[in-house]
Amino acid sequence: MKNSDAKTSDEIVREAEAWWKTEIIDIHPGKIAMRGYPIEELIGAISFPQMIWLMVRGDLPTAEQSSLLEAALVAAVDHGPQAPSIAISRMAVTCGVELNNAMASAINVLAGIHGGAGQQCMELYADAARRMEQGATLEDAVEAALDAYIAENGKVIPGFGHRFHPIDPRSGKLLELVEAARAKGVVGGLYSRIGQQVEAILERRKGKRIPMNIDGATAVIYAELGFAPELGRGLFILSRSVGILAHAWEQSQQGGRIKGPMPKSIPYTYAGPARRAVPEVK
Amino acid sequence: MKNSDAKTSDEIVREAEAWWKTEIIDIHPGKIAMRGYPIEELIGAISFPQMIWLMVRGDLPTAEQSSLLEAALVAAVDHGPQAPSIAISRMAVTCGVELNNAMASAINVLAGIHGGAGQQCMELYADAARRMEQGATLEDAVEAALDAYIAENGKVIPGFGHRFHPIDPRSGKLLELVEAARAKGVVGGLYSRIGQQVEAILERRKGKRIPMNIDGATAVIYAELGFAPELGRGLFILSRSVGILAHAWEQSQQGGRIKGPMPKSIPYTYAGPARRAVPEVK
Amino acid sequence: MKNSDAKTSDEIVREAEAWWKTEIIDIHPGKIAMRGYPIEELIGAISFPQMIWLMVRGDLPTAEQSSLLEAALVAAVDHGPQAPSIAISRMAVTCGVELNNAMASAINVLAGIHGGAGQQCMELYADAARRMEQGATLEDAVEAALDAYIAENGKVIPGFGHRFHPIDPRSGKLLELVEAARAKGVVGGLYSRIGQQVEAILERRKGKRIPMNIDGATAVIYAELGFAPELGRGLFILSRSVGILAHAWEQSQQGGRIKGPMPKSIPYTYAGPARRAVPEVK
Amino acid sequence: MKNSDAKTSDEIVREAEAWWKTEIIDIHPGKIAMRGYPIEELIGAISFPQMIWLMVRGDLPTAEQSSLLEAALVAAVDHGPQAPSIAISRMAVTCGVELNNAMASAINVLAGIHGGAGQQCMELYADAARRMEQGATLEDAVEAALDAYIAENGKVIPGFGHRFHPIDPRSGKLLELVEAARAKGVVGGLYSRIGQQVEAILERRKGKRIPMNIDGATAVIYAELGFAPELGRGLFILSRSVGILAHAWEQSQQGGRIKGPMPKSIPYTYAGPARRAVPEVK
Repeated sequence: MKNSDAKTSDEIVREAEAWWKTEIIDIHPGKIAMRGYPIEELIGAISFPQMIWLMVRGDLPTAEQSSLLEAALVAAVDHGPQAPSIAISRMAVTCGVELNNAMASAINVLAGIHGGAGQQCMELYADAARRMEQGATLEDAVEAALDAYIAENGKVIPGFGHRFHPIDPRSGKLLELVEAARAKGVVGGLYSRIGQQVEAILERRKGKRIPMNIDGATAVIYAELGFAPELGRGLFILSRSVGILAHAWEQSQQGGRIKGPMPKSIPYTYAGPARRAVPEVK
Repeated sequence: MKNSDAKTSDEIVREAEAWWKTEIIDIHPGKIAMRGYPIEELIGAISFPQMIWLMVRGDLPTAEQSSLLEAALVAAVDHGPQAPSIAISRMAVTCGVELNNAMASAINVLAGIHGGAGQQCMELYADAARRMEQGATLEDAVEAALDAYIAENGKVIPGFGHRFHPIDPRSGKLLELVEAARAKGVVGGLYSRIGQQVEAILERRKGKRIPMNIDGATAVIYAELGFAPELGRGLFILSRSVGILAHAWEQSQQGGRIKGPMPKSIPYTYAGPARRAVPEVK
Repeated sequence: MKNSDAKTSDEIVREAEAWWKTEIIDIHPGKIAMRGYPIEELIGAISFPQMIWLMVRGDLPTAEQSSLLEAALVAAVDHGPQAPSIAISRMAVTCGVELNNAMASAINVLAGIHGGAGQQCMELYADAARRMEQGATLEDAVEAALDAYIAENGKVIPGFGHRFHPIDPRSGKLLELVEAARAKGVVGGLYSRIGQQVEAILERRKGKRIPMNIDGATAVIYAELGFAPELGRGLFILSRSVGILAHAWEQSQQGGRIKGPMPKSIPYTYAGPARRAVPEVK
Repeated sequence: MKNSDAKTSDEIVREAEAWWKTEIIDIHPGKIAMRGYPIEELIGAISFPQMIWLMVRGDLPTAEQSSLLEAALVAAVDHGPQAPSIAISRMAVTCGVELNNAMASAINVLAGIHGGAGQQCMELYADAARRMEQGATLEDAVEAALDAYIAENGKVIPGFGHRFHPIDPRSGKLLELVEAARAKGVVGGLYSRIGQQVEAILERRKGKRIPMNIDGATAVIYAELGFAPELGRGLFILSRSVGILAHAWEQSQQGGRIKGPMPKSIPYTYAGPARRAVPEVK
């Protein structure tokens, strides 16, 4: 393939050097720096959550900020073999793929519906925060943000309620940690108040408690720590990858070949046309 | 990142131009040729299976060769929602991904165990064919190839027997088409004889019929047509992608959110330690 | 995991049977039917494009409809190693994955921007068609549909213009085939007229020709044949998968290990902070 | 799909309940336990690396074991946009996918060649350790393990030498941490000695230093901590996922559409047949 433009080699090389541009990592023979910090000075000195923060944001968190991030990462690692991502990871292994492939097929489905609730919840919180910045009270801001969300996306509020858990045992613990961090001045507490206000309004509107679930609680933490909503999903993926790996590995130790979603004794429902002859089509 | 080697821009450009090298497609502004054939002359002139053949092999098949390939592609498109690949495609859609992502997660698991039987069977056939070239009779060659396969891989012979179908309705039809093609001189028939000999030996050894399944039958076709074993899997993927797309699309029309592998009323088995307190670890 | 609901085994089995529901494939021991047609009657009787149509739509196309679909599938198989999907497929192979994995990583990126132009173009055409149904002239309908598209999505019109080809050699040939099919009454020609009207308006507005590219031309074909826009992308994926496979296979024959996007003699641009010491964070 | 076996609903439910079996997570409404530990007691109490260890191994590490694991996780997060996995992640984003999809396409290629060096190196170390258990000296065991590895896999020894770094700045730091842990009795030091012996033998054989790289050094750590070789790759994936996410996110902030591997000013090499006419094939 030849471009019609006549460029000199020097021009082509300059264009090629500019093709990939990053502020994350600088590599020279024998030297590697992440965000400016020599890698050998980071190893052993910072924690894995601090490294995660440094890589996606460019600066180092304090130890307290990092602890809060760590709690959120610990909380979301797994939700069992009936979660599609975990089931896919286990099924993939029985098809003969390696761990990286099983993880890829599984992580791929941590999309809007399965893995995106935290991100959507962060956007809801951010909308309420923006309204407060513009002068609204907490109550009015959350009420308006909820109405706007529902108008655009329908009634299911991401981060609140759970198909399975009447109360999510992870949320309360995470909110306690946020409160402790707020008391120490590590975080401001705005998003925690917004989240609790969402809960209060939902209870008033529905006449029953729709408690904050893990997505709502980690959204509070990620928002308090200043992460962009998209990174909320990214952090969830890093966390859930642990469960996806653990289940893929356990399945590989159990064995099993071409394990479908249900045992073959349970037939699926065929709802199409009855058997019929092929007409002449050619 | 700077390489220590001092290269001139001309050298760098030459190295870069040589970085990706292909015999498949030649592109210039306004001109596209596949294996030398202008694309606008191929469109409307050759069939999709002929294009598949051209792309992976570099030459055009005859109409008869193409028909045989087409029959194999038609035969393997789907095996229902209890096949892991199809289930993954449907589950992925309910997680909120788009069709390309659902297809990717599903195609990714068409690996050694789930999608590799045809490829392995082609390798078994090829081993028998090599032994015949070196002078062995059909009977001895297949016997020895089977023994060698079992010694290395265990007792399950890829392409023969089925967990579900006592007789695979696809195999007989495919072998008829091979026989018809052989009668017309389109293919030599060697691999068809090898496949049938495998079946005969398995029946003698096991005392019951272990009939050739679709993987064994498409392996006959692909081997007769001269495809490499790895391409046997590649062709299977192109075929099964059709079913994967159809099921992903059907699921998207049905709706459903975060659909796990089984209804939640069916619990999974937890076989780990009973609930216990977290010890001090930090 | 136990649900609190006390269900009987019969209820659980009924719920499980209804969990996966399909109109595509019916499987019983020794019997497989696609959309009601016994598989052994389809093999050898219908073409691969006809099988694709049957699987995603439920009915069989005529031979003429199928030929038009086939032309579109043939046209879009590849766009060379500078397309991200093709490059990813080749790079993946050099990392040690198998063909199914390379194809999965590549197909996964046939998303909104890279593979979605056809789908978006079909939606644009469909909007114009709806406006014509409501009484607008061709000219007014296309003008309004374009304005609505631009207002929501910006100035780039999917399916028109190309970064590389001044004239796309595939489009003209595909439109010829549509015109021939229209002359024979195979298709109505509405979407062909809409597509050409888009081209005419763009030329008038921009003062230069922005010719219909392959996405715009296959969108005409798929729309003429009655496919939903999402399936436009699905069909593109089936087509491009052929090129993805061919390049993965070619790369595997060439060898190469951990082949990055560019030769290492071309450095990337590091634009982050200069080397700095790690502060105390723990 | 009906199985020929007549099973009662009770039998089917029992079979279905046993279909997915795990020792990792136990879920009941309002209760979640990982390996027996209530999740709410783990959150805030254990670190993310401790959670990773707990999930894949079933027990909790000591704080010192966890620190060593953490250092290895921190060390391997990124190797820049010329690594295929990172480039794929960035290219994927420019095609319009979301972060989970970009990460999946990238993680998928952390296969034998790109991400498997650590795993292979752990297998080499384990082979040497087995030989020592059977009575061989360190020198003889490593010599024999190396010879066996080379005989089966060729001359490239995984974990030693680097295409780019004359000395890998990460390895020395990691080995220091292993030595400090050994001095405190946290690890035994066997694999560290094996790794250094590999280096010594390679230097003697090749006449120049082939220094241990990051894969060789993390392999020492993972082996010292008792991880299975396959989990070595799994842990590498968790680590590299951080870089993959950071680069995907940075690319999404930079923008860019359908970004191929190299700028279009650099043509690829077409080495196939010259332009030719399509023969009659149908």
